[in-house]
Amino acid sequence: MNFGSDNCGPAHPAILDAVIKANSGYQPSYGDDTIMDRVRAKIRELFEAPEAAVYLVATGTAANSLALACLAQPWDTVFCSAAAHIQRDECHAPEFYTGGAKLTLAGEGDKLTPEGLEQAITSWVKGDVHVSQRGPLALTQATENGRIYCVTEIQALTTVAKKYDLPTYMDGARFTNALVALGCTPAEMTWKAGVDAVSLGGSKNGCMGVEAVIFFDPSKAWEFELRRKRGAHLFSKHRYLSAQMQGYLADDLWLETARLANAHGAYLAKRLTEIDGAEILYDVQVNMIFARLPRATHQKLRAGGAVYGLFDGPLDSGDPEAPLSMRLVCDWSITEAEIDQFIAAAK
Amino acid sequence: MNFGSDNCGPAHPAILDAVIKANSGYQPSYGDDTIMDRVRAKIRELFEAPEAAVYLVATGTAANSLALACLAQPWDTVFCSAAAHIQRDECHAPEFYTGGAKLTLAGEGDKLTPEGLEQAITSWVKGDVHVSQRGPLALTQATENGRIYCVTEIQALTTVAKKYDLPTYMDGARFTNALVALGCTPAEMTWKAGVDAVSLGGSKNGCMGVEAVIFFDPSKAWEFELRRKRGAHLFSKHRYLSAQMQGYLADDLWLETARLANAHGAYLAKRLTEIDGAEILYDVQVNMIFARLPRATHQKLRAGGAVYGLFDGPLDSGDPEAPLSMRLVCDWSITEAEIDQFIAAAK
Amino acid sequence: MNFGSDNCGPAHPAILDAVIKANSGYQPSYGDDTIMDRVRAKIRELFEAPEAAVYLVATGTAANSLALACLAQPWDTVFCSAAAHIQRDECHAPEFYTGGAKLTLAGEGDKLTPEGLEQAITSWVKGDVHVSQRGPLALTQATENGRIYCVTEIQALTTVAKKYDLPTYMDGARFTNALVALGCTPAEMTWKAGVDAVSLGGSKNGCMGVEAVIFFDPSKAWEFELRRKRGAHLFSKHRYLSAQMQGYLADDLWLETARLANAHGAYLAKRLTEIDGAEILYDVQVNMIFARLPRATHQKLRAGGAVYGLFDGPLDSGDPEAPLSMRLVCDWSITEAEIDQFIAAAK
Amino acid sequence: MNFGSDNCGPAHPAILDAVIKANSGYQPSYGDDTIMDRVRAKIRELFEAPEAAVYLVATGTAANSLALACLAQPWDTVFCSAAAHIQRDECHAPEFYTGGAKLTLAGEGDKLTPEGLEQAITSWVKGDVHVSQRGPLALTQATENGRIYCVTEIQALTTVAKKYDLPTYMDGARFTNALVALGCTPAEMTWKAGVDAVSLGGSKNGCMGVEAVIFFDPSKAWEFELRRKRGAHLFSKHRYLSAQMQGYLADDLWLETARLANAHGAYLAKRLTEIDGAEILYDVQVNMIFARLPRATHQKLRAGGAVYGLFDGPLDSGDPEAPLSMRLVCDWSITEAEIDQFIAAAK
Repeated sequence: MNFGSDNCGPAHPAILDAVIKANSGYQPSYGDDTIMDRVRAKIRELFEAPEAAVYLVATGTAANSLALACLAQPWDTVFCSAAAHIQRDECHAPEFYTGGAKLTLAGEGDKLTPEGLEQAITSWVKGDVHVSQRGPLALTQATENGRIYCVTEIQALTTVAKKYDLPTYMDGARFTNALVALGCTPAEMTWKAGVDAVSLGGSKNGCMGVEAVIFFDPSKAWEFELRRKRGAHLFSKHRYLSAQMQGYLADDLWLETARLANAHGAYLAKRLTEIDGAEILYDVQVNMIFARLPRATHQKLRAGGAVYGLFDGPLDSGDPEAPLSMRLVCDWSITEAEIDQFIAAAK
Repeated sequence: MNFGSDNCGPAHPAILDAVIKANSGYQPSYGDDTIMDRVRAKIRELFEAPEAAVYLVATGTAANSLALACLAQPWDTVFCSAAAHIQRDECHAPEFYTGGAKLTLAGEGDKLTPEGLEQAITSWVKGDVHVSQRGPLALTQATENGRIYCVTEIQALTTVAKKYDLPTYMDGARFTNALVALGCTPAEMTWKAGVDAVSLGGSKNGCMGVEAVIFFDPSKAWEFELRRKRGAHLFSKHRYLSAQMQGYLADDLWLETARLANAHGAYLAKRLTEIDGAEILYDVQVNMIFARLPRATHQKLRAGGAVYGLFDGPLDSGDPEAPLSMRLVCDWSITEAEIDQFIAAAK
Repeated sequence: MNFGSDNCGPAHPAILDAVIKANSGYQPSYGDDTIMDRVRAKIRELFEAPEAAVYLVATGTAANSLALACLAQPWDTVFCSAAAHIQRDECHAPEFYTGGAKLTLAGEGDKLTPEGLEQAITSWVKGDVHVSQRGPLALTQATENGRIYCVTEIQALTTVAKKYDLPTYMDGARFTNALVALGCTPAEMTWKAGVDAVSLGGSKNGCMGVEAVIFFDPSKAWEFELRRKRGAHLFSKHRYLSAQMQGYLADDLWLETARLANAHGAYLAKRLTEIDGAEILYDVQVNMIFARLPRATHQKLRAGGAVYGLFDGPLDSGDPEAPLSMRLVCDWSITEAEIDQFIAAAK
Repeated sequence: MNFGSDNCGPAHPAILDAVIKANSGYQPSYGDDTIMDRVRAKIRELFEAPEAAVYLVATGTAANSLALACLAQPWDTVFCSAAAHIQRDECHAPEFYTGGAKLTLAGEGDKLTPEGLEQAITSWVKGDVHVSQRGPLALTQATENGRIYCVTEIQALTTVAKKYDLPTYMDGARFTNALVALGCTPAEMTWKAGVDAVSLGGSKNGCMGVEAVIFFDPSKAWEFELRRKRGAHLFSKHRYLSAQMQGYLADDLWLETARLANAHGAYLAKRLTEIDGAEILYDVQVNMIFARLPRATHQKLRAGGAVYGLFDGPLDSGDPEAPLSMRLVCDWSITEAEIDQFIAAAK
């Protein structure tokens, strides 16, 4: 009954099999391994982007920070939502890697709107040396609250960015969860909708720790390589990153694990409604559920061993009927039985 | 016949077994996994340092840069050898992580001497706001040229550092190769000899990619954690770093792989002397051999498929008798048969 | 009729006299001049702070950035208002000097409240390695909208900061304007009210370009000196900074110029009410007036040669009755006659 | 008898006159003053560079650091001499402003040679992501030891730089001392000899504190402006920088003060030879003399009140005949009488 995060569960056995298979003989180090050649070709094919620059790093924060550092000067501001992982969860890694760029929050929630974005952009006067210079748009797909930008919404946001000559980066830590929910192609969700660079997350979706960073315009490729090395993110035994990504993309495993996680999320959301006083906070579109339950219910759940994030107040004291917010994340490996057990514990 | 680097070979099967064993059920993320608890305890025990702060990162450059950033202010200079990995091979990662510290080269070669160190330290006047402030000593064990500081030499260097109130960091990318060559204990080679912080490399000695960073004085622990997160080096699925290190330290595997690599190095060095015109450049103490062979011999070796680093001139043209320098590194997995094959190809 | 900023007017002749007087013979450079000894003593006396560390720099942005860099780690967030100069007008100098600290905006306007501050502080969970760590409070006195924190208000804010063990920095670019308006002592407005460090602005109040930075706890002194030098803000011919500050503080000149500027502001505000459709936006407490006038009135003023900042829309087209916002700043040198001329032009 | 530095003497009265003249009425702030327009035009004319980007800052370290930051990426290395001010005297300001660039020392002394430069450049392999990337050449004119690169020497160095596609920056803290010694034009000593950017020092040659930074290719102009603002070096009351530079360049004052200083240097050097045991260390080409005198002579000089830099040992104890090194710098304002007095004190 662990709904703490999709990074708490195990890696998919097929990922480990790919790693074991890669663990034979000698391979050039630092990204020159032959497996990476195949990974690069595979990602270019999947994204219908034969010229794309493709790199691997081991953490989502590295992917975000290194990509943004290639798109933002130190005096630029990144435009993102108030809930963005880069704003709330990365201990200033974006500021560190960009050399001091600012994050301007466009709106209050987790999803950006074209109006909010334009308001944020125009809050900084272009060409004024005293203020933040306008830099990239960063959007998270799926969002930190488990919501999805549909292709039309992405297009609307990048259109605003392009109006001001700003590039767009997509934090795709849960890229595939969004992709399978939308039922579109990787290209449709990215460059065809105006996205310039994207991370394709593996760590939260069945890998041990690997994220691809993709620049559709490869002109930033060498700069990315330098930044990755300087950031200490270029692995000597890079083959083990390559192998994970190779296993992840082979036989549609990435789509399968994302579909599993999303299906578990939907099932959990459905069953949550059976609990007295339960309130679902956002549309459940991928594998994350934000909900409110009475304090007493939380107490039962925690006593029963359920693991998940809890907000809004102390668990132990206070009105037992008072609702407390929770975040539940289903990873690919969770089972219906565990969800049933969770619901049973809440009742 | 691959002597390119000890990061070109495979991981030891026992490391992968440990990873597979760890890949079951849920684990808290971001370093709170139970495996890490055991790793921490094991390292403290091995180093006879019950209070030490122990962390894992995935690359040697991350270990070096993060550790030095905790020991050096941006206006400090690190004292290191001219051949130091932090100076020659990390694309300014130390400068990046420290926020602009300088590296002052103490002497020309790969091994520091107390005299050279003291001269370098005193080249910057203490208390002068205009100049580099004196910062940590960084030494590499084994050195980039495959040599070892014996315990007495380490003690002599740290004594100079302490005379000027400077801390000492040991880059231990090949820590274990040095350890087994010296036949001393981890404590003797580190804190008992005056070392304040050290990295214990795994990547070059049989792991996929993991290095421990150890601070014997834990007062820098929280700063290290913040720097690691901000540098995007805190893994969400940290258990896979922990598992590698657990497997590495279990049943003396780390010592065994280092002994294997060193023994291969010694065997290769011995057999190299059979080749006409061969000259060994440094005492071979661990698993790295620097040597000179005639150009014609290199041509034969390369034609035969041998992989290794080559310096000093073009392979294809020039005096066939002219000596060209080479670096040969033996990883744990290489076999005597491959070394014999290499020697045969050179003859 | 120039109300563009208090940095558009001339320096007070007494400041230049002090500079001329200092321009004789030899003086040690880099802050060791004898004039600085007297300035330091004078500031310590004025602030009743015999131990304070006192430094001079030439720009307000340097004062703010260097002081904050001594108070905030790169992973800390500074708490400030949404209108703060450090947020809106310094092109990421604070981010640059701190090495990537974040600015968390506590509330929407120019004046912080204890409630808003506490909400901002607690929005970042203490001890969570993933988020911004809680750093200094930065408040501007007078604010960017020309308002003043009274001593009680300052005390209330620093009390919140202290509750969370956070230091307080006061951006005193218009310190003296606030001081004379409040009628309190420098000590009452700073350390007696809980302020840890403050800048005492000279540039906007009659000097050519000098600001003092004062740390009441001198433990940061050496770090400040290193940061100032590394930031290229340590003047070789420092005596010219010292001389300005000496002239500024002699014979209560600083108080006199601030009183003049404030009195001009009050007079301008009073007379603005004579203009049809005029609306004063904030209480006029120092030398800055934010007001709204009809577009047609602005057109007359601009045609008449008046200089001031204008917001909210194009001057040239649109409803002539539509109100447009303006900022008017009175420097010490402006005259009643010029204000009268301005009012006449608006009528 | 103050030979401590050319930044210890007073500003030329004509500089103060220019400042006083500028201190009237209102001027746009932040570099938009009308005086700056004239300064820019004057510098473009003097340098025969009608397109050049021209900026003013207040310190030489700011000029160097900001200019280099426009020419070097964080992963680049600057090539400079071991005696370079940027290496020895700026407390990591270049590292800070570039975001962590390295300084590679080309040769041991104060003057670079084409051979030493080429060796330094090729010590970093081009296109290798692990190493420092090749960045700008930085040379100091006159050097820190008071020597001059003649035009042919400059040309030879920039030719090497250009061979590797590297730009050249000239630290011109004592630009005019070198210029009048060579008797060439500013254009000949800079862009006609292959220099891409240069600082024109004022602070050491009669101003209070002002340096011009000139980019002959103006494509870096906007970046420089952003870096200057972000570094807190954009003065609000910029007119006082402009006025100094205006006064400096008017009526050939800059040439006159440099000629005075150089002539004093030559006179002092000549008279030094009268002292028993005196040894001049470098050719005296501008206003700096490096010499050795017996300890006993130094004791007499210091007892007589002479001020200058002293190296190599304690003044108070040791062999009275042992030579100690000294640096003597003549500023524009020193007189023959003072030099005579100095010589008399030494005898």
